[in-house]
Formats: sequence, C-alpha cells, structure tokens
Amino acid sequence: MTDPVKVIEIKKSVFADNDEDARKLRAELKEKGVFLLNLMSSPGSGKTTTLIQTISLLKDRIRIAVMEADIDSDVDAVKIKEATGIPSIQLHTGGMCHLDAEMTRQGLDNVDLANVDLVILENVGNLVCPAEFDTGSCCNAMILSVPEGEDKPLKYPLMFSICDVVVINKMDVLPYFDFNLDKCKEYIHMRNPKAQVIPICAKTGEGVDAFAGWLLEQVKNWKQQ
Amino acid sequence: MTDPVKVIEIKKSVFADNDEDARKLRAELKEKGVFLLNLMSSPGSGKTTTLIQTISLLKDRIRIAVMEADIDSDVDAVKIKEATGIPSIQLHTGGMCHLDAEMTRQGLDNVDLANVDLVILENVGNLVCPAEFDTGSCCNAMILSVPEGEDKPLKYPLMFSICDVVVINKMDVLPYFDFNLDKCKEYIHMRNPKAQVIPICAKTGEGVDAFAGWLLEQVKNWKQQ
Repeated sequence: MTDPVKVIEIKKSVFADNDEDARKLRAELKEKGVFLLNLMSSPGSGKTTTLIQTISLLKDRIRIAVMEADIDSDVDAVKIKEATGIPSIQLHTGGMCHLDAEMTRQGLDNVDLANVDLVILENVGNLVCPAEFDTGSCCNAMILSVPEGEDKPLKYPLMFSICDVVVINKMDVLPYFDFNLDKCKEYIHMRNPKAQVIPICAKTGEGVDAFAGWLLEQVKNWKQQ
Repeated sequence: MTDPVKVIEIKKSVFADNDEDARKLRAELKEKGVFLLNLMSSPGSGKTTTLIQTISLLKDRIRIAVMEADIDSDVDAVKIKEATGIPSIQLHTGGMCHLDAEMTRQGLDNVDLANVDLVILENVGNLVCPAEFDTGSCCNAMILSVPEGEDKPLKYPLMFSICDVVVINKMDVLPYFDFNLDKCKEYIHMRNPKAQVIPICAKTGEGVDAFAGWLLEQVKNWKQQ
C-alpha cells in the first residue's frame, strides 16, 4: 500500500492582475530551472491515463512531479502515484472551475522544486475557463479525444488558440466514431497555425512517445536558454 | 436551403441576486404555461444529436423551440433547424462559460412564447460553471456519454446533484470502453438519489423514446399544476 497523497485545499486568489502574477511565477520557475506544463481538456478525455504513460517514458530521464487539480475527489493523484511512483499531490479547487497563477503557486509551494525538472499541472476538466487564466506555465497542452468530435476547435476557439500542442487521444476507437482527423487538424490550425498535433492512444500507449519526446525537448530548451 | 438562424449576442448580467431572478423567471414561465428545460453536458457528449432525436419524437405533440448557447459558432442552431424544422436560435456567450437567469431571459425575449409549450436551452458545454447558476429552468437535465467514464459523478458532484435526469449517451460504443453502467448509476445516486438515469444511443435513436416520454410528462405536469 502506498501512502495517501497530499491534498491541498486551494484558496481563491486575491491578486487583481493575474497576467502580471503569471509572468512573475514563470520567471521564478526559469531561475529554478523548473519547467511547468499546464495540461487541459474536457472531462473524461484521458488526461490522467496520458500522463501515466508519458511519465513512464520520461521518469528515468528527468525528475517529474504532478499536481492534479480537481473540484473534489482525490482519485487522479492516487492513480498517478500508484502507477508511476512519482511525487503527486491533489489540489482541491472547492468548486472553482480553473486555476490561475496564484492558485498554481499554492500547489507549487508543496512541491520540492529543488529536486524536480518538470512539474505537470493537470488542470480542471473544462474547455472554457482554464483557457482564460495564465497559470504561469511554460507551455500549454490540451487533449481532445476522438469521441468528443472534430468540431471542438470551432466551438472552443480560445482553448485551441493558446495551446502549444494538441494531443488527439482515443485513436483506437476511430472506427466507431464520425471523426475526420484531417478536418480536425485543419480546424486546430485555423485557431493556432503553430500548434503541434499528436494522435495517440493512451490506453495502449501508441503514439505517446511522440508527445513524451516533444515534452522532453521543451524541458531541455527551457533549462538551456 | 433554410433561412439562416437568428444569432443573439448575450450580454453579461448586471443582477446581483441570480437566485431571486431565476425564481422570478420561473414564475413568469409558469404563468405563460411554458416549460423550460436546461440541458447541460461536457463538450462533445451529444447534446445536439440527442435533441434532434427527441424533438423528432415530440414535435407533433407539443410546440417546441430551442435556444443553443455557444461561445462562438452557430453550427448547433443550424443543425437543429435543418433537421427538425422547429424554431431555433443561437445564443453567443462571447466567451462566458455558463448562462444565468438574466442571460436566459435575453434569449427568451427572442422566442414566441405565446405559441410554444417547451423551450429547450442547450447550455455551454461544461460540467462545472453551468451547475452553479440557476437559469430559471423548470428542470435540469444532463448528458454523460460512455467515453467520458463512469467516475464523473465523483469528480463533478454539483452538476450531478442538481440534475433531475441524467441521460447516458453513446451506449453503442459500450463494448469499446471500460464503462460500468451499474457503477455509474450508483455514483449518480450518491449525488442525487432521485435522479432518473436513462441510457440511450442518440446516433441510432435507441432509448430516446424513454427520455422523450419523461420530458413530455414534465411539460404536461407543469401546465396542469
């Protein structure tokens, strides 16, 4: 049996200027040589499973910690910790629909930043609000799963426009859904021409090496520049 | 070719007490004999397809209008209008992640309430924020689709606790996902012991008659009581 995960009850931020606070946090992370990835998606698109597969590929090469944000439950942080053995804490937002920079900082205060290269923040499952708040992360990533449909970049423009990479998950069920991958890529690039698009199946691990490779490169660049 | 749908740009509400405003709106609807259903879900769970199937079963028995809320696009209102021929308008929230009573009222001002029995509001795709704001609706319904996973009532407790009915969509793909329907029902009833749970496949129409029957009964009760 593993130890129970640490649960942090996140308090509402009091800072008026989140963008300024996010810039400050990013600069602090830069100084410490810690890369923060903000991972977003709808509920149920497979964030936690994708993270477990990605961490398994990377954990012997870089030092990783995970912060799992959720409104209420602890299931994700426990899952990550049990499956990968890496430090994982749960952030309870107490009903709040997103994290901003100050809320992210409350989580980071509970991470041993001196001994970590990469912190992954799994944001609240929501395609709307998390896109509006800079968490102070060095990169934004999102997961869109095949069952959600190829038209999501048309309906949630801001989310797709702020993400550096879009992982298309659940590629194994493509035969059972009307999902056109080329059309989806086209819609994503309408919102953000520079976005990387990486199709994967987190359940089997197929394609996850491409995402892990992309992430490893970002972490290295962040530490070198 | 059908006429283009009417698009309403929703303005931010100025009322401080949304609960009071929602009660007022509900009383007005009662007086007019109009039933308002608030339909919520994650992005891509099949709200629009479910509505098209439901409306096809009911439109010869009661007079229906639809308000499709979306951050940006018009695709849903156009789809509904083309597939069912019933009055359908698009509400643009301009980035806002939910509708409250005043925003719902702005939509209803563009519906011919004297000639309608049922108005269906398709809320913004989001399991968090829409649950926090009473729209003034007479009932709340939500759709959870099989690919999203059975654990969602554990993670989004408020949404499940305020819904009178939970439609489980995409039952046709059950063989390809680890989704335990009994477990899901158990989690839903942990949040709301009175919630009806109705499994359907909106794509084929299977099970939609049960949801349509439930809805018809609510409309009749509302008009009679």
